[in-house]
Amino acid sequence: MDNDDLRRGKPTCHIAFDEATAILAGDALQALAFEILAHDAMPISAEQRIIMINTLAKASGSQGMVGGQAIDLAAVGNQLTLPELENMHIHKTGALIRASVNLACIAATGIEPGVAMKLDHYAKCIGLSFQVQDDILDEESDTATLGKTQGKDKNQDKPTYPALLGMAGAKQKAKELHDMALANLSHFGSEADLLRDLSLYIIQRTH
Amino acid sequence: MDNDDLRRGKPTCHIAFDEATAILAGDALQALAFEILAHDAMPISAEQRIIMINTLAKASGSQGMVGGQAIDLAAVGNQLTLPELENMHIHKTGALIRASVNLACIAATGIEPGVAMKLDHYAKCIGLSFQVQDDILDEESDTATLGKTQGKDKNQDKPTYPALLGMAGAKQKAKELHDMALANLSHFGSEADLLRDLSLYIIQRTH
Repeated sequence: MDNDDLRRGKPTCHIAFDEATAILAGDALQALAFEILAHDAMPISAEQRIIMINTLAKASGSQGMVGGQAIDLAAVGNQLTLPELENMHIHKTGALIRASVNLACIAATGIEPGVAMKLDHYAKCIGLSFQVQDDILDEESDTATLGKTQGKDKNQDKPTYPALLGMAGAKQKAKELHDMALANLSHFGSEADLLRDLSLYIIQRTH
Repeated sequence: MDNDDLRRGKPTCHIAFDEATAILAGDALQALAFEILAHDAMPISAEQRIIMINTLAKASGSQGMVGGQAIDLAAVGNQLTLPELENMHIHKTGALIRASVNLACIAATGIEPGVAMKLDHYAKCIGLSFQVQDDILDEESDTATLGKTQGKDKNQDKPTYPALLGMAGAKQKAKELHDMALANLSHFGSEADLLRDLSLYIIQRTH
């Protein structure tokens, strides 16, 4: 087994099983997400479910995660600018993180549009800071701590925040995104502390 | 390019582009299907859309197409019985063919449950006859006519209807499935002729 194929210290699905099985598992889980939104016991209306399904589909597909992954594929070996890198991450990982927050706003009736928009901005910030911290850890951490292969992105000639901003600049960027995330929660009281802790955890995590 | 990678005489997606791109295209198209059901301009209620989405998700996922494909993966090199082969095809290709008929029944308000069930049976029959004919063509046709590699399944030691029933038995099976498909349309008049023609086309096609 190649170290290249670890996540959280465990072999990835395509290593533990095989590529075909991993692809099928992904296909099945994608369908299951929509099945759950259409079918589970949440006390929400069919109209709300439809909006949630539409939101998840957009965030998953060619305008969301898949689009970001396609940009990522095309970017290997190429020099991206900071806006291009950010655009990739906003789609690749950010879209589903935002969707997870937006789905909750849709399911919770009576959330004001202004509040939903701030929560969306919060989610966009932590989606990006997650990726910045990922790039930092990819450079700084060792494989045992990281639970996936250290230096993988850099070795594959993928663009990273430290490569574009330097390590100090990347850390500053993560901090700024965390501050922006918190600013979007400023109108909440302690009921949003879990969201605040999550943002802090994202930029302090070591794996 | 390997002949193994033709469909309808054209290179498959993973050959024309690459495997990663083909996987992403599949992921994007799966999400798009749900987006369309949630979002398009059909004059149907949110409740109908939810049932359609649930139907498509079940037909696509681990209990449907993905499940059948997993059985197929596990079956390579193994001797399947006829019921096992049928179970694989009912899931792998049959589930989505049935779903396409069932979705229309859900979208068309006022279809009696008995009629919907007969249409479902019709769809199940043509789903299987499609696969039987596929196996027959895989054995009998040449690659140029078939538009995909002749003998591919047999060469890969995959179970097929001709292998289990003999060629005459497989052709008889296709004919029986066609007859059963038509029997399930017997209460319709000429408005179902397109469905009858489709069933006939499936067992008479040469590619």
